[in-house]
Amino acid sequence: MEQILGPAVPSSRAVLRPIGIQDVVITGGPLARWQRINHEASIPLGLEQMERSGALPNLRRAGGEGDGPFQGYRFQDSDLYKQLEAIAWEHVRAPQPLYAEFAEQAAAVLERAQRPDGYLNSHYQVVKPDKIYAELEYSHEMYCAGHLLQAAVAAARAGIGDGLLAVARRLAGHLVEVFLTGGNDGIDGHAEVETALVELYRLTGERTYLELAGNLIDSRGKGLIADSGMGMLYAQDHLPVRDADTPVGHAVRQLYLESGIVDVYLETGDESLLECSVRRWEDMVATKTYITGGNGSRHDGEAFGERYELPPDRAYSESCAAIAGIHWNWRLLLATGQGRYADLIERTLYNAFAASTSADGVRFFYVNPLQRRDDLVEDAYLGRRREWFACACCPPNIMRLVASLSGYVATKTESGLQVHQYVPGTVQAGEGAPARLKIDTDYPWDGLIRVTVEEAPAGEWELALRIPAWSESTLAGLSWDEPGDARPAQPGEDGYFRIRRQWRHGETVELRLDLTPRHTYPHRRIDAVRGCVAIERGPLVYCFEQADQARGVEVDDLALSPGARLRVVPVANLEGVGRTVLIETEAAAVDQPRGGLPYTSQPFAAGTLVTATAVPYFQWDNRDGGTMRVWLPLA
Amino acid sequence: MEQILGPAVPSSRAVLRPIGIQDVVITGGPLARWQRINHEASIPLGLEQMERSGALPNLRRAGGEGDGPFQGYRFQDSDLYKQLEAIAWEHVRAPQPLYAEFAEQAAAVLERAQRPDGYLNSHYQVVKPDKIYAELEYSHEMYCAGHLLQAAVAAARAGIGDGLLAVARRLAGHLVEVFLTGGNDGIDGHAEVETALVELYRLTGERTYLELAGNLIDSRGKGLIADSGMGMLYAQDHLPVRDADTPVGHAVRQLYLESGIVDVYLETGDESLLECSVRRWEDMVATKTYITGGNGSRHDGEAFGERYELPPDRAYSESCAAIAGIHWNWRLLLATGQGRYADLIERTLYNAFAASTSADGVRFFYVNPLQRRDDLVEDAYLGRRREWFACACCPPNIMRLVASLSGYVATKTESGLQVHQYVPGTVQAGEGAPARLKIDTDYPWDGLIRVTVEEAPAGEWELALRIPAWSESTLAGLSWDEPGDARPAQPGEDGYFRIRRQWRHGETVELRLDLTPRHTYPHRRIDAVRGCVAIERGPLVYCFEQADQARGVEVDDLALSPGARLRVVPVANLEGVGRTVLIETEAAAVDQPRGGLPYTSQPFAAGTLVTATAVPYFQWDNRDGGTMRVWLPLA
Repeated sequence: MEQILGPAVPSSRAVLRPIGIQDVVITGGPLARWQRINHEASIPLGLEQMERSGALPNLRRAGGEGDGPFQGYRFQDSDLYKQLEAIAWEHVRAPQPLYAEFAEQAAAVLERAQRPDGYLNSHYQVVKPDKIYAELEYSHEMYCAGHLLQAAVAAARAGIGDGLLAVARRLAGHLVEVFLTGGNDGIDGHAEVETALVELYRLTGERTYLELAGNLIDSRGKGLIADSGMGMLYAQDHLPVRDADTPVGHAVRQLYLESGIVDVYLETGDESLLECSVRRWEDMVATKTYITGGNGSRHDGEAFGERYELPPDRAYSESCAAIAGIHWNWRLLLATGQGRYADLIERTLYNAFAASTSADGVRFFYVNPLQRRDDLVEDAYLGRRREWFACACCPPNIMRLVASLSGYVATKTESGLQVHQYVPGTVQAGEGAPARLKIDTDYPWDGLIRVTVEEAPAGEWELALRIPAWSESTLAGLSWDEPGDARPAQPGEDGYFRIRRQWRHGETVELRLDLTPRHTYPHRRIDAVRGCVAIERGPLVYCFEQADQARGVEVDDLALSPGARLRVVPVANLEGVGRTVLIETEAAAVDQPRGGLPYTSQPFAAGTLVTATAVPYFQWDNRDGGTMRVWLPLA
Repeated sequence: MEQILGPAVPSSRAVLRPIGIQDVVITGGPLARWQRINHEASIPLGLEQMERSGALPNLRRAGGEGDGPFQGYRFQDSDLYKQLEAIAWEHVRAPQPLYAEFAEQAAAVLERAQRPDGYLNSHYQVVKPDKIYAELEYSHEMYCAGHLLQAAVAAARAGIGDGLLAVARRLAGHLVEVFLTGGNDGIDGHAEVETALVELYRLTGERTYLELAGNLIDSRGKGLIADSGMGMLYAQDHLPVRDADTPVGHAVRQLYLESGIVDVYLETGDESLLECSVRRWEDMVATKTYITGGNGSRHDGEAFGERYELPPDRAYSESCAAIAGIHWNWRLLLATGQGRYADLIERTLYNAFAASTSADGVRFFYVNPLQRRDDLVEDAYLGRRREWFACACCPPNIMRLVASLSGYVATKTESGLQVHQYVPGTVQAGEGAPARLKIDTDYPWDGLIRVTVEEAPAGEWELALRIPAWSESTLAGLSWDEPGDARPAQPGEDGYFRIRRQWRHGETVELRLDLTPRHTYPHRRIDAVRGCVAIERGPLVYCFEQADQARGVEVDDLALSPGARLRVVPVANLEGVGRTVLIETEAAAVDQPRGGLPYTSQPFAAGTLVTATAVPYFQWDNRDGGTMRVWLPLA
């Protein structure tokens, strides 16, 4: 079987097949920058934290080394597993002896920590050995196991961490013995292991892993998860997955669960699983997704809210939810070939996800709001980005996604290649396959994308290029046409512009996506941003930060006129931020005096005209920590 | 000393002196209805719950009777204390042998439970005797003690529950020994005991109680309260009270603390305490108060939010916060004589507070949002009102306020009477004092208030009638003028219309408050209701409930035109609700289709005209549990 080095490698039932990390090279643009920063700053910080935060010491303790107290949360092991997955993908992309060494040492620690029967969880082994599998509603035992399985699959594909796979298989075998053949009908309160079990099945061919994943999914909604005190919706146990119409409860749990559901569909062909997941996706997109692609409207329970409950200031939009959303969308894209999933990956990637990390890669947001007022910013999970968190689920999760980003760029079919995300670099179809593309672009700062066929297989094949839904008028220029004969690039219903032909080496398609900056209005049922407008350009959502405004202009006083022109201002190196494109526009500065109850018999008046400046949302909070708004009131 | 039977009876430093519950009789209108329902339905339910919820059994257990497990939260005792306070005030208003019996039995249980040294807290005595006063950040030991002190003061004033006062004094003495003279500098994470200690000082003259209250207040902001995991602001220990500019953290804690602060000022004359409390009041009113008078914008931490963070859907606006706010405003009113505090009492009373209880008095809201969407209403603390709660702080708190409502109607000075809240009934100045008013009114349904001087003291004295800030044009007719010669009633800067004269028996002032229904707009910095308008009439905030709309008209589709006329529609008995005044208006029904991301390049279009019907907010959720909105978008 062909070796695809990347996450989520489904069976042939997928409409599209992934192209591995080793076959896509990203040479420039923000994604290359994120990968460089991840390599140089984030991953070294993460590796250091594996000692400091207790993740490795806890596991050593479980293996009988040392006797310090257990540190951190009961899911502390998972930080290490995500970190291991991050360095595995990074090792495929840009090998480092350090990564292989770390993985080897970690594998040895895990081998020693693992019980002879395969069980492995440092918290329960050290702190609560009598409660193993007895409090699954909040134990995170299978959640941690899932992250270990994913790390082991990644390490095996990357060829590092000898022994990790064996540990993972023993643990998976233990889960199978207890929960599949052993009659224990427990389910972890935090979904994650489902998608991991399917991946391990894909790697090993061991069908009981897939069966267990399917069982865990089918068992939800029968009241098998005790209430952990967070209510019925929190762990998605309120309804069988085939009956639930809308994502609810803890957002990361729901989104990981969906990945597992689509993964099981991809291997078993159970259409009812794909259908229910798509139904919830459609509801989520229409009613529970931020303009940044983020999900999760409530701090309380880190949860999805009601339909259209999308407050910008109290948005939770957890970094992990952005990652989980990208995982889910990727599986739906593979399963269906529809560009709307790649569109949402792009939106989430460039906004909710990218905002999670500082420009220098050593500070992270857990929560990604769309507004910051200038009081009370000391809240631990709001305020500024932080180097680490007591609950550090996000930073290593961010690192594993960034390390694997090239795996999300393109896919292949029997008869062609599909480009989903535009990055400068090269894409080749895989081991020995002759198709090879070179992509030249300054995307997302510029809309011109030149795709050159550097190598082509014999015979007809099809190149499919995603036309993002936001691109109002896309032009395509073909190198075999007359010069300058660009034409409207009409995408198919699936969102792809397709050219099927017998390609010759060096032939080029020039795509011009429409990067005209645009005003965007919210659906009228989104109460929290009614009467507001946002600015977008290409895949980037913009925001107004206090740092970019003229002296005396307060972001909270600004109101935008939809008629005002949006001026594009490229900046080579904005201090603290780096390369960017700002947008300037005329705005009204409206100062409504404060005093007495803030409810009056007259609406507020128009203000004086000033220039307001917006910066891409993903680059926010790299200056002074002042006010920020994605949505501004309409003048 | 004159016996004033009511809560908060300050020293002569108060500008206004309270008139006790026994001297004000409310004979009609909503307040009389609430008192009747409280008497007939709520209090009986509450007394029953004192057994069922564990409050009494826990205390019996602490006294060595029985050996069942401790039930409920660590502050379970406080439910009983609030319930006792409720029946004490109710016993003044409408005596019942049952109340006296219950108070006597409870006093006996408390006597048996109290340790010889005076300590009393069933949770710590039964469950954690080794942790007494060791975890004050969340123990609620002083909080519970405070409620016991208040109950004992009320019972002593009402003449029931012999023995309660002795228990309370022993407990207060123990607190004094430990925390005033004993060198323990601990503070309870939940303020409450401060105002209670001052009240007990007022009743008993024991000055160490006042000193301890002052000490506890002065000790805040020095990091003496450990972080209970809720962050630095939660328990208001982030800054000394004299330095804090804005209310923060857990709303009920902040508001109880403010009552204690004003109470200490009232007894000691420390102006800096009054000043800081007024400063925070002004900030709270301008930036952190709902149109309903409710406070608390976040479920997370049951907390005040940032300035202007006032989401209607996720409003916390806890019933207990409304009560605590009324307590604070009442003390500020006594301390300053300014009508703005009585204005806010009225707003909170008729809206945030009154909404907490169902029309039949047996169901309660813990949280009082200004909007309910029609999905996911099963949330334990949202959704419909409930008979009781695991954390049942609100229901007995509601009962004690309703039982004492007549204490908030009027006050007196050396030279006059002040009427703050308009209710049909009688007010007399107190024991042996000759002044007696009769008030005839159908307020708040009608704006005509007739105040008749039934008895008058000799010499000149002043009648002061509050003119609510919302009354645009108030007329006054005086019985000693020519008939029909009503004149504009111009209030002074303090908000009162005053008449000073030598009154004769039977003289009448007819006040006509302006009950024209009005459109109200939010300050432009309140993001969550931007572009919206609300409807008010007199003190009542209105809301749109699905139950009142014509078939096919969805509340969530409605948009209001500020030009549309508001029609007043009195209804003698609306099913489930009782007597009310509805408001009808033309509205646009705008249906914006759902599908894809809810962010588009065009704002929504105008809709078709329909009739929309609004009902007073305090009467909501007495029908089918459907959609509700206080704020509607502007068409």
